[in-house]
Amino acid sequence: MTAHTHQTAPTQFVEANGIRFAYRRFGKAGGVPLVFNMHFTGTMDHWDPLVSDGFAKDREVILFDNAGISSSSGDVPTSVEGMVANAIAFIKALGLSQVDLLGFSLGGLVAQELALAAPKLVRRLVLVGTGPRGGDGMASLTPEAQKIFAATYDPPDHLWLGVFFTSSEASQAAGRAYLKRFRLRSEGRDPEVNQKVAPAQLEALAKWGAPRANPFEYLTAIDQPTLVINGDNDVIIYTINSYILQQNIPDAQLILYPDANHGSQYQYPERFVRHVSMFLSDQGA
Amino acid sequence: MTAHTHQTAPTQFVEANGIRFAYRRFGKAGGVPLVFNMHFTGTMDHWDPLVSDGFAKDREVILFDNAGISSSSGDVPTSVEGMVANAIAFIKALGLSQVDLLGFSLGGLVAQELALAAPKLVRRLVLVGTGPRGGDGMASLTPEAQKIFAATYDPPDHLWLGVFFTSSEASQAAGRAYLKRFRLRSEGRDPEVNQKVAPAQLEALAKWGAPRANPFEYLTAIDQPTLVINGDNDVIIYTINSYILQQNIPDAQLILYPDANHGSQYQYPERFVRHVSMFLSDQGA
Repeated sequence: MTAHTHQTAPTQFVEANGIRFAYRRFGKAGGVPLVFNMHFTGTMDHWDPLVSDGFAKDREVILFDNAGISSSSGDVPTSVEGMVANAIAFIKALGLSQVDLLGFSLGGLVAQELALAAPKLVRRLVLVGTGPRGGDGMASLTPEAQKIFAATYDPPDHLWLGVFFTSSEASQAAGRAYLKRFRLRSEGRDPEVNQKVAPAQLEALAKWGAPRANPFEYLTAIDQPTLVINGDNDVIIYTINSYILQQNIPDAQLILYPDANHGSQYQYPERFVRHVSMFLSDQGA
Repeated sequence: MTAHTHQTAPTQFVEANGIRFAYRRFGKAGGVPLVFNMHFTGTMDHWDPLVSDGFAKDREVILFDNAGISSSSGDVPTSVEGMVANAIAFIKALGLSQVDLLGFSLGGLVAQELALAAPKLVRRLVLVGTGPRGGDGMASLTPEAQKIFAATYDPPDHLWLGVFFTSSEASQAAGRAYLKRFRLRSEGRDPEVNQKVAPAQLEALAKWGAPRANPFEYLTAIDQPTLVINGDNDVIIYTINSYILQQNIPDAQLILYPDANHGSQYQYPERFVRHVSMFLSDQGA
């Protein structure tokens, strides 16, 4: 048990696979830690302190920048498999033999693939706002995502109001509250990602989303208990992909939140923490 | 607060709409009662005591036989609208101005329609193992349901192992435990339904399920917060119908349980009670 929180946990470093990985580790030690896997162009600072500190009450939380992201060295691989190899190296470099994985969006692709590549390393899987290989509308950015990411915003953070929240008044208000929360950490913030990150991640996303025969068959090999969570109106990775994940992963539960887009866990942070905590503590979500 | 439980609550009667309604009422009084709406050919005794007593700790539970069912007088209407008119009369006859509704399968059709027909009477809606008007595979019994209901079982209760549970060992074991639980009440049980019930209910189900233009538009008028729950492999009312309900009811949350068929709430009774209790007590399920 450390006294650190999302706001105060120092950025630490560990070397593995030729990469110097930046990470933060806080919360109640002694159990299976929960490792967070971040979305497209995000850094450790894009996680919501209400979510990370919410989990940290009961378990150890580990945030990290994968290779080529923000405070970590190296290059972003152009495939999910490459990102997974780096994530595995990072987790093992911390001396951990088993973790729970929370993956959001692109981080959810990494989490799925990591569970398959290193099954003994992963106890449970939480897949948020994400989708399967060859998923619906995943061969490229969705038309909605293209429009949202192509626009300019003042302040730039307002991008996330469109990416993560619906157009309803309630969802936008929740979005503005999230923007405040993720800016709360004032010291030792991660730098924004460099210009090489987005193209490499987009290439990895396109490979993952490309149409193929029997696209969902690989999911039947995931043997970790899995909780799939999304908003009911995700325009970045369509909500039906969460249903597809649930239907094909053998031991999976699905929760869809109302009036919510890609970032439903930031719209309902307390509810999200409660559901995931129940799932991780064997109370079946 | 009464000392009664699922096992001991006496069957009471109230007259309304020319019907003598049988009901049982127990649990913690003083808040908004939760009224249970039963499935095809079921009586008050088919509810799971782990579920009803689980809710009764925090709220008042009301079980009842709708018109023509078991201990209640009258005939089963051949339309959901007719069943709803009777259910409204029953609830008002108890002097209640607002209730929460839990509807399972056919009872979920009644609950949807009741929320639309008497919106002020209904605070929140819990729709379990059910589907929308014109839903997928709802124009008649599904092929799986036809097969399951056409077979004979020794003992007859084993019918419900096929209707409510999957073929997995874990689900069947949960099913056998449920069969024991719903037989626990030894005194004052409801008689089984008579032979006129199934044909009338099937007629009502077929009218509800018939294909039509814009089948799901009516759901957008449900303005109660709604929780939709089902198993991930419901062969009686296909699981995709729960997704459709969630996608079309404006304020709805969906939860799908793993390795579960039509009776997921009897497979995971504690988890189900926890999710529904959170939803009913404003903690967002």
